[in-house]
Amino acid sequence: MANIKDIAKMANVSITTVSRVLNNHPYVSQKKREAVWQAMKESNYQKNLNAVHLSTGKTHLIGVVLPFSNHPYFGLLLEGIAEEAVKNNYKLVLFQTNYEETREIEALDMLKHKQIDALIVCSRICSWSTINDYAGYGPIVFCEDTQEQPFSATFVDHYKSFQTALHYLADKGHKKIGYCIGRNSGANSTNRALAYKDFLTKRKLPFHPEYIFEQCLHLEDGENVVSKITNMKEPPTALLVTSDQVAAGIAASSLANKISIPQEIAIIGFDNQPISKVMGITTMEIPLVEIGRNLFSQSVQSHISYKEMDVTLIERSTV
Amino acid sequence: MANIKDIAKMANVSITTVSRVLNNHPYVSQKKREAVWQAMKESNYQKNLNAVHLSTGKTHLIGVVLPFSNHPYFGLLLEGIAEEAVKNNYKLVLFQTNYEETREIEALDMLKHKQIDALIVCSRICSWSTINDYAGYGPIVFCEDTQEQPFSATFVDHYKSFQTALHYLADKGHKKIGYCIGRNSGANSTNRALAYKDFLTKRKLPFHPEYIFEQCLHLEDGENVVSKITNMKEPPTALLVTSDQVAAGIAASSLANKISIPQEIAIIGFDNQPISKVMGITTMEIPLVEIGRNLFSQSVQSHISYKEMDVTLIERSTV
Repeated sequence: MANIKDIAKMANVSITTVSRVLNNHPYVSQKKREAVWQAMKESNYQKNLNAVHLSTGKTHLIGVVLPFSNHPYFGLLLEGIAEEAVKNNYKLVLFQTNYEETREIEALDMLKHKQIDALIVCSRICSWSTINDYAGYGPIVFCEDTQEQPFSATFVDHYKSFQTALHYLADKGHKKIGYCIGRNSGANSTNRALAYKDFLTKRKLPFHPEYIFEQCLHLEDGENVVSKITNMKEPPTALLVTSDQVAAGIAASSLANKISIPQEIAIIGFDNQPISKVMGITTMEIPLVEIGRNLFSQSVQSHISYKEMDVTLIERSTV
Repeated sequence: MANIKDIAKMANVSITTVSRVLNNHPYVSQKKREAVWQAMKESNYQKNLNAVHLSTGKTHLIGVVLPFSNHPYFGLLLEGIAEEAVKNNYKLVLFQTNYEETREIEALDMLKHKQIDALIVCSRICSWSTINDYAGYGPIVFCEDTQEQPFSATFVDHYKSFQTALHYLADKGHKKIGYCIGRNSGANSTNRALAYKDFLTKRKLPFHPEYIFEQCLHLEDGENVVSKITNMKEPPTALLVTSDQVAAGIAASSLANKISIPQEIAIIGFDNQPISKVMGITTMEIPLVEIGRNLFSQSVQSHISYKEMDVTLIERSTV
């Protein structure tokens, strides 16, 4: 479909002029006005209006549920979602939940009341039982494995990727491996905890509860991890860190505390965010922008689909 | 106004139960249903519905124009905007423009057609002449000095803060000072260029066009700056960098290339993003989250207001 940029080009006028013609603005010459009308006719241009939305019942709005809007992980997902939304002439309505159940329910209610056409849930706090009440009101798409639920999803296998990274560290000779994680609840965290437990069993390694660092979400949380480690009698020699942000915080704080990487502490991050490249951090690449793009595509499809994305180990200099 | 969390508390039932009652879901006991109704009556609870929006003409949607959704500068602004939106029961509609004029005009058109109640423009590409056509359709709020325009704004004085940082570097003995900037167009960039020129004149320093590094927006752009500097016969000894992201990229890349900071190159960043704290980068703090909060408040006010925010130099270890 032609947009107003195309119309401007066809009519050989500025975008502002097209906009003025569309909005019945008086200060446009008759000649230009006719050129714009001609171009609109030729390209079968249709203006996106409330009138259209009232007649079709479509809002061309897609809701996006995110816990935080200022975290690079969600920023990259949103980037992919927004790229596709722009291409397909949809707008995004943002629901920043801070993991509060009421905020998620508000988003689900907006879908129910047809105020949005679909909902993309980047990370959830509501139970499946709550969400299932909203199945049937429009597509709800998730960024986690939903194969037992009636919802589309684009996801990575967190169990498998956690195992890959842990065995990689063990193969490099590490026996005291810890991990840093955001929430201790949530499906992804549960799968990672299970992968860790199974890994220890398989490698016959002891379980040290103090090697698990929770509430690691932001860059600054890396400082806390380093300060805890420096106070341990028997600190871990390697850490698997579920966010490159936190991994970067650990790397920077280690440097400041004269702890050498990887000699004293090896680090593997997650996501392959720009900061991991710049700081040379070994990481498990999750194709977040691509996942975002696919989540959008699924949100405008009426059928349910599942798409697993691959996670790739990128070797740099922190292991 | 009470929200469904308050109702749940008052009625001594779960949030899910309140939601089910609101949506006439069958599986709720009569007793609980009555408790919820009683609580809604007592708290004068009003459900936010399309019906309400059709009768009042209000959508409770605020548009936010951003060039990129995955950049920490805009992430922090959005964080502040979203915080206040959540508190005031508004939702945000995101317009990711990539600095394309048509995308901004789409957002302005949505305001004109009452599909959103107000528009917050975090960074613009359209001229004032284009935007002025939309004055009167609802509040449009900017993150730059608009005192000659009929629009509210929350902003910092980029001329003044650039001068402060440049004189600080000169007072530390630097005579070869360059700067890194995002766009070479835009009001903020123009003000910064002017501040640089005036600074050179005042300090009687020569102008080196090669000391101005444009297109510096992201972490990765810092690498390019370092590679350019290492190839210069007479490189700058200090850099003012308009984004902490780029400053962090320069710091990391300098480290990788064995260029010592601040001995060989001094750096001042902008924003005071978490990464500058973690990496010990001296920076000009812009209170982005607070600016975001204020932008939201202005977007729901019918009168025009201007608010200048202070920029503060935070001394760390890169100068």
